[in-house]
Amino acid sequence: MDSTANKIDPARADRDDPLRAFRDRFELPQGVIYLDGNSLGALPKSVRQRVAKTISEEWGEQLIRSWNSADWVHLPQRVGERIARLIGAEERTVVATDSTSINLFKVLSAALDLNPDRRKIVSERENFPTDLYIAEGVAKQIGKGHRLVLADTPQDILGMLDEDVAVLMLTHVNYRNGYRHDMAALTKSAHEKGILVIWDLAHTAGAMPIDLTGAQADFAIGCGYKYLNGGPGAPAFLYVNPRHQGGFRQPLSGWFGHRAPFDFDADYRPSEGVEQYLCGTPPVLAMVAMDEAMALWDDVDMETVRAKSVAMCDLFIQEIDTYAEEFGLKLATPRDPHLRGSQVSYSCHNGYAIMQALIARGVIGDFRAPDIIRFGMAPLYLSFAEVSEAAAILKQILETRTWDQPEYHVRGAVT
Amino acid sequence: MDSTANKIDPARADRDDPLRAFRDRFELPQGVIYLDGNSLGALPKSVRQRVAKTISEEWGEQLIRSWNSADWVHLPQRVGERIARLIGAEERTVVATDSTSINLFKVLSAALDLNPDRRKIVSERENFPTDLYIAEGVAKQIGKGHRLVLADTPQDILGMLDEDVAVLMLTHVNYRNGYRHDMAALTKSAHEKGILVIWDLAHTAGAMPIDLTGAQADFAIGCGYKYLNGGPGAPAFLYVNPRHQGGFRQPLSGWFGHRAPFDFDADYRPSEGVEQYLCGTPPVLAMVAMDEAMALWDDVDMETVRAKSVAMCDLFIQEIDTYAEEFGLKLATPRDPHLRGSQVSYSCHNGYAIMQALIARGVIGDFRAPDIIRFGMAPLYLSFAEVSEAAAILKQILETRTWDQPEYHVRGAVT
Repeated sequence: MDSTANKIDPARADRDDPLRAFRDRFELPQGVIYLDGNSLGALPKSVRQRVAKTISEEWGEQLIRSWNSADWVHLPQRVGERIARLIGAEERTVVATDSTSINLFKVLSAALDLNPDRRKIVSERENFPTDLYIAEGVAKQIGKGHRLVLADTPQDILGMLDEDVAVLMLTHVNYRNGYRHDMAALTKSAHEKGILVIWDLAHTAGAMPIDLTGAQADFAIGCGYKYLNGGPGAPAFLYVNPRHQGGFRQPLSGWFGHRAPFDFDADYRPSEGVEQYLCGTPPVLAMVAMDEAMALWDDVDMETVRAKSVAMCDLFIQEIDTYAEEFGLKLATPRDPHLRGSQVSYSCHNGYAIMQALIARGVIGDFRAPDIIRFGMAPLYLSFAEVSEAAAILKQILETRTWDQPEYHVRGAVT
Repeated sequence: MDSTANKIDPARADRDDPLRAFRDRFELPQGVIYLDGNSLGALPKSVRQRVAKTISEEWGEQLIRSWNSADWVHLPQRVGERIARLIGAEERTVVATDSTSINLFKVLSAALDLNPDRRKIVSERENFPTDLYIAEGVAKQIGKGHRLVLADTPQDILGMLDEDVAVLMLTHVNYRNGYRHDMAALTKSAHEKGILVIWDLAHTAGAMPIDLTGAQADFAIGCGYKYLNGGPGAPAFLYVNPRHQGGFRQPLSGWFGHRAPFDFDADYRPSEGVEQYLCGTPPVLAMVAMDEAMALWDDVDMETVRAKSVAMCDLFIQEIDTYAEEFGLKLATPRDPHLRGSQVSYSCHNGYAIMQALIARGVIGDFRAPDIIRFGMAPLYLSFAEVSEAAAILKQILETRTWDQPEYHVRGAVT
């Protein structure tokens, strides 16, 4: 690999950055280079005011009336429409609600119900664990012998798509190594075998353009608190292709999914639209934070985001290429931008301690067991100069072995 | 009924009120008598500051590190312990998480799994509809012929508890008429027939003392946004009796219910404690609002709350007794305090319009189809003078027929 090819100059790249102005719309702490927006996105400045207003005026002053006057009741749909634009979904196909895990439970249950004669759910061993746990839970509850079959590598998936597979359930971009699947091609192959496809967009939404409609995806789910910057534990989202809406498909049949919740019928009559996938009362404070974070995206062109993301990952890889071999860092993320998301990961010995030493120096990435250090690139608020500096600080830490201090080896609850 | 017996003097009752000081800890709008705390509790003043701090300092400054440094990761357990004290639950039996509907899905699934040879779920036709909808969803997904059998009146329940009933699922206090079940007696009768019992405490928690441990309840669920004042769509809670913890019982098997979420195992190994009933990432902003609201309860004696609640309901009923018959108001709530919760409901013609006219005069209660006007008594922030004034304003509205104006007949989305 010739690392001088297309060498990126950070200063020039920052000068020419069409997204430069967005940085000012985020609260970023002094002395920190934040490369963990793929775990928790930074705080959009306007969220504080918006939530304060909701608490003081809508809850405090208007009280129960705000369900109508502030239209709290339609927050899941309103936020859903804002997310829809970023993921290539049509109107009335996306709602913001619950958590990613719960939303997967809903759409996986629906997908199995739509494909009742088949028993296999195909996914990857390296998928984010909660997705696999939820599939276990769904299969156990249905109790008809559904089983989860896991591919060891992305390349194995195609060969596993046979006539007994009901659902292919994949995370578009791998949380650990950043590998990105070809959504359109895999969806097409699965459909040719009569298999429904669920895409988890946790590491995709807000990181790159995507076209669920074009790919003819059946269902999708995703996360509000990563690249979308919706806040810690923000409401998640789900997408249901219009051809699968209607019927009584998902088992979390709470009152917000009812056709007329405030008629207080004893019988569940599901909404015909994507609203059927709502369940309980929406968490308004978390929802308005998410709504405000999403408002910022209304001004964003996703192709521009992707171009900057690719350039930032390229820059980071190029700079680390100059010392990776010497210190035993092995690039875990594909070099080819077409095969990756918006993060760069390395496997290395002592990865946990190295990441702790980085954090102590103000470079925040994260560690994922067993041996991955992970750096997320959030184009709305990061500069090329920061990316370059992070690579330089990592080099210093490795050269001086500052990671080899006892305090950097102490594990926290969340790493 | 002799309405002059034990006549309550509002001025004296307010002067002697041991909970008087709590009112100052709430934000209450001028010109409003808020009798809808059973739908959305009022705003505790300290919530605004707490949420602002979480947004600015924990999310904005500390970012991802707050999962450890601010202990976000244990919010469900911490808030759960605060709720546990109010509902007579032991330590490590309650978590705050998800919505009431989703929590019912979890505990009902677990209860059916624990009683696998029986096929009936008994509840009431007048139960809050989402509870019935969720039972439909669980039964459909399990697909083993479970069916929901509904009692027409509370008195019918005992006779329905036969050897094919797996679960008795009741809301302790009826949302519409305020009728309260005898939790200890019904639980005991159900257990004698080998039936597990789930109590929905939506209209109980924060309204009166309760003793889940003493009643030997199997499971309970409840709501954070009513009497507990956790904010609109606040996290709900669930209780699991220690004898039912362990195993792999509930199907929403997300990563926060895993024994070691941050080991990122491919296989689900459930936590042995009540934490197994957690699913996805907790919504931190909603959780800290709830935590702050619950901190206020640490200073509250629930017997005192109940005594004031009973007296307020008695006062309201006494005053309305003087004109109820003349205007066709029929008391829907039992007169006997042992048989009711903390609300007073009347059935009447034109109930929707009457409630709209009341709201226009600053008396906020709510309407529940088909004909119920409902007034919730939240002892922490209401005065007896307000209760008395509300009854007087209702009388004026009925005397002058101000409810009979077109604008009071226009239905909103949420009534």
